[in-house]
Amino acid sequence: MLIDTMIGMIAAVLTTSSFIPQIFKAYKRKRLDDLSPYLMLLFISGASMWLIYGIFREDAIIVVANVLALAFNSTLLLMKVMYANGKVVKENK
Amino acid sequence: MLIDTMIGMIAAVLTTSSFIPQIFKAYKRKRLDDLSPYLMLLFISGASMWLIYGIFREDAIIVVANVLALAFNSTLLLMKVMYANGKVVKENK
Repeated sequence: MLIDTMIGMIAAVLTTSSFIPQIFKAYKRKRLDDLSPYLMLLFISGASMWLIYGIFREDAIIVVANVLALAFNSTLLLMKVMYANGKVVKENK
Repeated sequence: MLIDTMIGMIAAVLTTSSFIPQIFKAYKRKRLDDLSPYLMLLFISGASMWLIYGIFREDAIIVVANVLALAFNSTLLLMKVMYANGKVVKENK
């Protein structure tokens, strides 16, 4: 495997998996007040564009990384809305 | 300009700028409790790898996007540490 493909794969795994602990923390605390909704909205639109860019460039790593980033960020946005509406606030330390 | 270069630029601007409202919100509230430190740590390491990937692939868009993502995420991580230690908590709605 080419060195740049390997680096690209590691990069994709790291940035994509970075959203997982955030989803767990949100689920545990039932709270995302400190997270800006614009972070997720902009990131979702950006990841969609990166996805198209990856398709144009026929770069599978960019495509897969951004499909996952889209999924995780949409989940976070959904949780943000749910917890903000439900006002389910548990002060878990 | 090629269509894929334009799409890549838009993607880079969107994902990179997504961190700016988060930095403003953190500065205003002096609080980042709901943000997972692993989100930033993983994202910083991932963005570093994407930066190297972009250099290997000679893709200026990927390089510039990830230099900025690195800068913004490092700023957020610094704020996370500062506000957690300083215990400066102001309940701004």
